[in-house]
Amino acid sequence: MQYPTPIAKLIESYMRLPGIGAKTAARLAFFTLDMKEADVTDFAKSLISVKRDLHYCSICGNITDEDPCDICKDTTRDRSTILVVEEPKDVMSMEKMREYHGLYHVLNGVLSPMDGTGPDDINIASLIQRLHDEEVTEVIIATNATTEGEATAMYLSRLIKPAGIKVTRLAHGLSVGSDIEYADEVTLLKAVEGRREL
Amino acid sequence: MQYPTPIAKLIESYMRLPGIGAKTAARLAFFTLDMKEADVTDFAKSLISVKRDLHYCSICGNITDEDPCDICKDTTRDRSTILVVEEPKDVMSMEKMREYHGLYHVLNGVLSPMDGTGPDDINIASLIQRLHDEEVTEVIIATNATTEGEATAMYLSRLIKPAGIKVTRLAHGLSVGSDIEYADEVTLLKAVEGRREL
Repeated sequence: MQYPTPIAKLIESYMRLPGIGAKTAARLAFFTLDMKEADVTDFAKSLISVKRDLHYCSICGNITDEDPCDICKDTTRDRSTILVVEEPKDVMSMEKMREYHGLYHVLNGVLSPMDGTGPDDINIASLIQRLHDEEVTEVIIATNATTEGEATAMYLSRLIKPAGIKVTRLAHGLSVGSDIEYADEVTLLKAVEGRREL
Repeated sequence: MQYPTPIAKLIESYMRLPGIGAKTAARLAFFTLDMKEADVTDFAKSLISVKRDLHYCSICGNITDEDPCDICKDTTRDRSTILVVEEPKDVMSMEKMREYHGLYHVLNGVLSPMDGTGPDDINIASLIQRLHDEEVTEVIIATNATTEGEATAMYLSRLIKPAGIKVTRLAHGLSVGSDIEYADEVTLLKAVEGRREL
């Protein structure tokens, strides 16, 4: 005996999500069955809306429901600095800090020869175009501290520096609140290298 | 700055699911953004369909897209035995075993005075009605091995036994493939109590 078709299909859909296996998918599907009808309808509508109403900002590559996005449109922001991130969610993390008031550029990916992702597959050309067209004095590279993120940072740095624009990278070091005991060697090395006078 | 409205709404919907917090919900929402449009449409449709096309079988309380459900309709099944479970997914687990050919009754809940769930809140009345109307000789109680499941089993047993119907409970003991070393005391006690001659 199988699950009734509607629930089998929903389980299949849940299983397409990352980190959700057959058991969790079944649990979520049965939970959905017990949810309020209005909540389920909302859920279905927002799924459709995310695909229909969101697109990438033609300037910075961030996701947005208007083009250009709120940040690119905001005239009060410092237009001389561009912070480069891998993903739209990284923009949200930076904005939560409430201390950065420049613009962003979202690569929507990272250089990864292993996965076949080269410079043409991510938003690098549009970044270079922006540096040509706008008065930018500093590019802050905030790709992740992974091998791919570092490689992308190096690549961008070599591409941008010759144009006489300052290129900086986020500091590596200990997380605030963390124990030295648990820090890995590479992080510790970076923390020592990047030490600052008190 | 906030997420664009469509994605914020989707994050909110994902967060209503059990075990999904703000970070996972955001990850799932961004994943949805990158999913194929057809898959997302399917997902939305199955959410709606689960609420619209599924209901409880009027006989056994299992979820079904037809009434009565496939199992209640199946004339080849042994109609003298009813196996009582808490949830529709328990029926699926039992069916996977492929060794039980009787009927089911789904309580859709469990007695739990702490949560205010009494006998009238779960499908007990309809079970008693079935025992009156049909020729049932054995009721197998397969509620979970939790405090609530045991209490429900005791309650049902006291209710059904006076009618002269055999009431049985699933055996407690060691899981097949498990180590005695890791079994808890109560399970071990039940395993010793329920020992069988070889």
